[in-house]
Amino acid sequence: MMAASGAMAVAPLANAATPDFDWAKPEIARRHDESIKRIQDWIARPAIAAENRGFPEGPDYAADLFKDAGFQGVTKVETDGKPGVYGVYDVGAPRTVGMYFMYDVKQFDPKEWSSPPLEARLVDKPGLGKCIVGRGATNQKGPEATFLAALHAIRGANRKLPVNLVMVAEGEEEIGSPHFGQVVRRPDILARLKTCTSVYMPMASQGPSGQVGINLGSKGIIELELVSSGAKWGRGPAGDIHSSLKAMIDSPTWHLIAALNTLVKDGGNTPAIEGWFENARPLTVREKEIIAQAAAIPGAEAQYKKSLGVSRFIDDLDYRSALERLASQPTVNIEGLVSGYTGEGGKTILPGRAVAKIDLRLVPNMTAKEAEAKLRAHLAKQGFGDIEVNVTGGYDPTETAETSSIIRASQNVYRRNGLEPSLSPRNAGSWPGYIFTGDPLRLPAGHFGLGHGSGAHAPNEYYLVESSNPKVAGIDEAVLSHIQFLHELAVVK
Amino acid sequence: MMAASGAMAVAPLANAATPDFDWAKPEIARRHDESIKRIQDWIARPAIAAENRGFPEGPDYAADLFKDAGFQGVTKVETDGKPGVYGVYDVGAPRTVGMYFMYDVKQFDPKEWSSPPLEARLVDKPGLGKCIVGRGATNQKGPEATFLAALHAIRGANRKLPVNLVMVAEGEEEIGSPHFGQVVRRPDILARLKTCTSVYMPMASQGPSGQVGINLGSKGIIELELVSSGAKWGRGPAGDIHSSLKAMIDSPTWHLIAALNTLVKDGGNTPAIEGWFENARPLTVREKEIIAQAAAIPGAEAQYKKSLGVSRFIDDLDYRSALERLASQPTVNIEGLVSGYTGEGGKTILPGRAVAKIDLRLVPNMTAKEAEAKLRAHLAKQGFGDIEVNVTGGYDPTETAETSSIIRASQNVYRRNGLEPSLSPRNAGSWPGYIFTGDPLRLPAGHFGLGHGSGAHAPNEYYLVESSNPKVAGIDEAVLSHIQFLHELAVVK
Repeated sequence: MMAASGAMAVAPLANAATPDFDWAKPEIARRHDESIKRIQDWIARPAIAAENRGFPEGPDYAADLFKDAGFQGVTKVETDGKPGVYGVYDVGAPRTVGMYFMYDVKQFDPKEWSSPPLEARLVDKPGLGKCIVGRGATNQKGPEATFLAALHAIRGANRKLPVNLVMVAEGEEEIGSPHFGQVVRRPDILARLKTCTSVYMPMASQGPSGQVGINLGSKGIIELELVSSGAKWGRGPAGDIHSSLKAMIDSPTWHLIAALNTLVKDGGNTPAIEGWFENARPLTVREKEIIAQAAAIPGAEAQYKKSLGVSRFIDDLDYRSALERLASQPTVNIEGLVSGYTGEGGKTILPGRAVAKIDLRLVPNMTAKEAEAKLRAHLAKQGFGDIEVNVTGGYDPTETAETSSIIRASQNVYRRNGLEPSLSPRNAGSWPGYIFTGDPLRLPAGHFGLGHGSGAHAPNEYYLVESSNPKVAGIDEAVLSHIQFLHELAVVK
Repeated sequence: MMAASGAMAVAPLANAATPDFDWAKPEIARRHDESIKRIQDWIARPAIAAENRGFPEGPDYAADLFKDAGFQGVTKVETDGKPGVYGVYDVGAPRTVGMYFMYDVKQFDPKEWSSPPLEARLVDKPGLGKCIVGRGATNQKGPEATFLAALHAIRGANRKLPVNLVMVAEGEEEIGSPHFGQVVRRPDILARLKTCTSVYMPMASQGPSGQVGINLGSKGIIELELVSSGAKWGRGPAGDIHSSLKAMIDSPTWHLIAALNTLVKDGGNTPAIEGWFENARPLTVREKEIIAQAAAIPGAEAQYKKSLGVSRFIDDLDYRSALERLASQPTVNIEGLVSGYTGEGGKTILPGRAVAKIDLRLVPNMTAKEAEAKLRAHLAKQGFGDIEVNVTGGYDPTETAETSSIIRASQNVYRRNGLEPSLSPRNAGSWPGYIFTGDPLRLPAGHFGLGHGSGAHAPNEYYLVESSNPKVAGIDEAVLSHIQFLHELAVVK
């Protein structure tokens, strides 16, 4: 997951001045340490589907968190992969809101971290404030635990939830949600979700200067490995052999390079898979207008480039064109390459196997199923039918209308806090929102939450809990933002 | 290093029946356990230049081994890299022979081995006999220690060496011998080497069925890394960023793939670097004749393919054509690829850096210097001048005339043992023989030794010490072959 990009000048958060939730503030403040500890304790218990690590402890722990927060009938939902977790918080309210949580986190290498990634230490970051540093801090345990803290605060203040909640959580988000459909489509769960007006996932939506973004959708994704091997190819060696033999023996690694080269043009910037753009919908006039607004924010481009550590966009595009490309362009990205000897120095071998880890980002109206079929057909047609395509996960793009209740509720709450949210037609990152926005549910679905974090999937991931910048929410203001949002969802037209 | 390929029917080794070295046999037999232990103790002390492991213990240990075997004035020779070791064994004989040793070994991963690679266990291999399994067993500690055992046996039997010896050893063979020239070209060492009639490296030259090969040269090699990075390129990210950004940010990994793709054609089988074949000398009529003889040996092709684990040669060539390609074709081989996430499953990043580990094999009359310059010019011209070319080692091809004393001495000794050696115009593997065969020394140089081993650079490398096949030498017969060879070098015309 990623936040949207727009940077903007922001005034100090206004919620301290809004009188309507004064009942909540003392309770939130009283529970401040408890809320931080909830995040830290959760980070200490990682579940990582790719490594089969933290099962069944991960889903059991998430289930306990949901029960503690007030959900009823919390159960694990078995799938062909890792289990989901399901629960309902029924207070007899007229409206019901669906919640999407993930309890898994991305893999990590402790060597790359400045503090142990499971210790979730509180670290003071200059210009930001006190942050929890740990795997999952912002993606997604910090924001999710912040939402749970909002439920604790409401109950602790003896208030009633303004909406009913239906919780569906999964433990395979970081491998592309391959079995989340089995959770959502279980008949009793699906029936409950059909009663919802919208679905949301808690998120730390603020940038480091306080700016906040709303995405009207996200790209779809397929994650896969392309594996070239002598064994499957029937050419080249079965295992690694001496490199001198290259003169007479084919190389599965060169075979993979040649295959990869057919997947793209323009130096890797444009997919060249046959039929790839057939169903790719160009940006609408309104989408381009939204992007132009985000691109026009003074200083946004410089700050964006700095945060990414890049000096130029593809083809030296201007910021607006680059943002249009980000929203509209399907991609073929190489996440990783592994072949032969990968240690220090060299080793004179001709490897028997080479692997490219790929992610394909999809735009409406492409589907994951269509894209996978086209990739396979392309490879076969180009003479690379022997290369294994091991899909590990993926799903369709998702879209939610700018006019939907969830988007308007988000805008209303952010504005009430003195923030003008920048819209983005589409997050270039991905989340399995399609399962809610697509058939049969067709619900508006998105993300919401004040607060700031960064470093998803990277070392030293953090989530801000005590902000030194009045424009950026710490955890207490973020908790309050969820209370505001739930109340807004209860009444928004 | 690799042995030649020709397989052939062989009679039992005849040296038991040759009366002329009867004086040596009891002494060799008496020292059998000592000879095995010498190999095992040496394997336990690995020196690996690529990992900066085993220094200064490695060269110190080699120096001690040389002193024990009778060499005088043994000293380490400092270079800009790892030290060489130099010594002389002067017995006042009319002729002097140069010895080339390496004391380093290839990297290894103990997880891939069936027994610990430094324990050098004795393992019984069906159809072969008792073998030492360990890193360096056959490449090159086993054969080298076998040669040293020959010196111990000569002295133990109170016999005089038939030739003087000049030893030059290096500790960087496995990284392409980048500083061996500094050893050989030290004026006093060069002066001593100029007194030599030839130079040889001990080797286990027999195949698993007893067949023996003689190479009339070896290809040259350059080992290097190609590194594509956002930092050097000025495009793409400086570090890893979220993969969704591929839509607007260039990928150093795709940049590397594109660059690699320009280096070859025919699916990686033919170098496409500009001017690459300019100085590549085609095979001579005699070289083709030699290859045809090796290719005609019944069963050779099947055994060769089986030993490599391959079912087809490039372009489905017949065996003779494949051997011609092996001897004559320069290659661009990918030893390894490393980019981004290399662990289990996927990780949605756009990597900031990608590395290809490459070896280039060179044929006469290409030179390493010329090849490196052409590679750099090619990359620059194709728009990849930002890709770093980090050369870790390399050297020119080497050739020794079929009519030279060392080749005739080898043939004489092998034949006296009942073996008809198959000639090969060129080993497709590489060794820094050019330093002896090129200017200013211009000495014939090659490899010699009975015995069998396999698995150089691979897991479970082994060296046969007690043979269960009468056609294949165990260590005692291999020791004797070196005694025979030194005596033959003393008299061969």
